Parts: sequence; structure tokens; C-alpha cells
Amino acid sequence: MMGTPLDDAGLDTIFRTARTYNGYLPGAVTEADIRAIYDLLKMGPTSANQQPARFVWLLGQEGKDKLAALSSGTNSAKISAAPAAVIIGMDLDFHEQLPWLFPHTDARSWFANDPELRRVHAARNSSLQGAYFIIAARALGFDTGPMSGFDNAAVDQAFFADQPSVRSNFIATFGHGDPSTIFDRSPRPAFEKFNRIA
Amino acid sequence: MMGTPLDDAGLDTIFRTARTYNGYLPGAVTEADIRAIYDLLKMGPTSANQQPARFVWLLGQEGKDKLAALSSGTNSAKISAAPAAVIIGMDLDFHEQLPWLFPHTDARSWFANDPELRRVHAARNSSLQGAYFIIAARALGFDTGPMSGFDNAAVDQAFFADQPSVRSNFIATFGHGDPSTIFDRSPRPAFEKFNRIA
Repeated sequence: MMGTPLDDAGLDTIFRTARTYNGYLPGAVTEADIRAIYDLLKMGPTSANQQPARFVWLLGQEGKDKLAALSSGTNSAKISAAPAAVIIGMDLDFHEQLPWLFPHTDARSWFANDPELRRVHAARNSSLQGAYFIIAARALGFDTGPMSGFDNAAVDQAFFADQPSVRSNFIATFGHGDPSTIFDRSPRPAFEKFNRIA
Repeated sequence: MMGTPLDDAGLDTIFRTARTYNGYLPGAVTEADIRAIYDLLKMGPTSANQQPARFVWLLGQEGKDKLAALSSGTNSAKISAAPAAVIIGMDLDFHEQLPWLFPHTDARSWFANDPELRRVHAARNSSLQGAYFIIAARALGFDTGPMSGFDNAAVDQAFFADQPSVRSNFIATFGHGDPSTIFDRSPRPAFEKFNRIA
């Protein structure tokens, strides 16, 4: 059952030469592209299959501009100009879905009376799913520009008003990256800096 | 600069047929394996290159048993029996590293007087890095068993006592998975369930 290890080109695509982009080449992102990305990212593991992420995908100019207006500094122009953007939200009441997402036990009861536990799990697992979005997009040949500089409360009000248990986690642009818009890669730590073997 | 899209085998390895394992085939995980996994995962993007994750890799029986004793229910035996385990921690004082990790601006000052902002960013970005660990391990042919059922405070005391600003986020076993130890895959949502296109 062990997966075939990726070759060098695959490792480059998802990690080694992949970069965060500030701008994109012309060309639309389609609904089919988004469905393909989601069909991959939803396979990534979450604790008790919580799948707490809630995605709002912005393909139209109006939606992108609405998000751009609530984003900080240089992020605003990047969002308006990108072919697509996504808001990765998290449902603080994800436990209400566990009876069908994790049907073999009463996982709902683990969370039902503990909003703080739900907050921690929603943040952790929707962030995992946000990383799966970045990797899934790359695996399908797209580039991404993840950002956390925006007004979370305003975005929640603008995009999740009908889902009061959902909070925004982070956002990203995506498309086919324009190489002229990347910065020099920031330093990566040597193994010894942040790792210990015991 | 666009990455070569992964082929079907690659998509299977990192997402589609990859599974969470409860047990592993015999065979050691080596320090070289861990360094290769880290060299990939550290390339994944974090906000302002924070890289807040702190990893304790457990290869020896004593370390695995120490973590197992602090883990809940069925997780305990899985950890002791696995070839390797990892504790993914997060440094709440990650901002002290930003002068060298994000050298072109004073990013340290964005966080220096805001412990709550640091907590949110450390949790989000160390979770992203935890997902990069899962995908990087899979990309190199390993299987993982991520878990969040353990005594966080006791693990912090046992493994991060010398780093008081570090908190455990989640843990995982890894190795080459034993197919007899996987459960049926939990349901994955249809696109319409948790997605909206605007």
C-alpha cells in the first residue's frame, strides 16, 4: 500500500522549487479547476475526519474586489488582479457534521459541550486543510499566494453572515504564477535549528 | 516557473490512495530519512516565513514509550510499536527568529507586544507545517498516523521543559504502513457541502 515516492520533478512541484506568487499570468481559473483542487485536498487527513474548513472561492471580479477591500496594504491589489482567490474558513460547530463524517462512534459528544476544544480543533484542522489546498493546487500545476493580512471580522461579516459559526482562517490567491512577481526566497533553517532527535 | 503537474501515481501517493495508518511494517526509520523529510517540509510557505514549528523526532524505544505514556487510549500502543514518532510543537516566541528568517523588514515588531496574535499565528503556521510533514513523508514513500489525543501539558513538560515558549500542537507516528491496520476511509464531502463559488 506504500505510495510510489515522487520523482525529482514532483518534489520540485509541491515543495522544492514551488514559490509564493504575488502576481499571475493571464488566463482564467475555472470551476472545473476548483472542483479538481477540492477533490484532492479533501482526501487529506483531519482529526476524526472533522473536515472543518469552509471554502469560498472567488472567480468573479466583484467577489475578488470585495475581499480586496477588506485586506491589508499590498494584499489588496494582488487579490483584485489575481485570476482567483479563496477564503478558507472554519466551522466552530463542525461537531454537528460528525455523525455522518465519522459515523462509527459518537464523536459529536466529544465536542458538544466544549466550545474551547472546538475552537482549537477547528483552527488546527482547517489550517491542515489550508495547507492541503496549497499542495493540491501546486500538484495540479497552479501557484498560490497565501495571506493572513486582512480584517477577519469584516470578512466573516461579508462572506459568512449566513453561517454564524464560521470564522475566516486565511486567504489565498491562485492561478499560474508570473515569475517576475516572486521575491527572493527567505532563508530556510538548518536541521539543527528547530529539530531534535530523541 | 509553473511546476510540472503530478501524474496519477504522484496524486495517489500524496492524496488519493494515501491513508492514515495505525501500524507499520518492520523496518527502521533513520536520521537520514528524518532529515530528508525536514528538508522538504521546511520549503512549504508560512506567514512571513515564521517557521514556528519545533520538531522532536522519536526514534528510540525510550522516547516513544515516554510519549506513549502521555497519550490517550489506543494511541499509546500505536506510538510504542511504531518505527518512529514526531511531536510537532510551536514556538509562541517565534517572532524572536524573524530578524534572520524574514530579514528585509522589521517583522519582529508586528508581534513583539501582542501575545494573542503570536498564539494565533503560531497555531496556524505550525499546523501548516504539520500538514507539510504529512505530505513530505508521503512524497518520500512513508506513511503517517497523525493524532491529537494526548496530554498537551504533560508532553510540554516532558519534551519542551528547556524551551518554555514551546507548546505541543499535534503528534504523529510514521514508517511504512501495514495495510492490515487501516480502517475503512471515512466519507468525504461532495463539493456542494462545504464550498461556495462567488
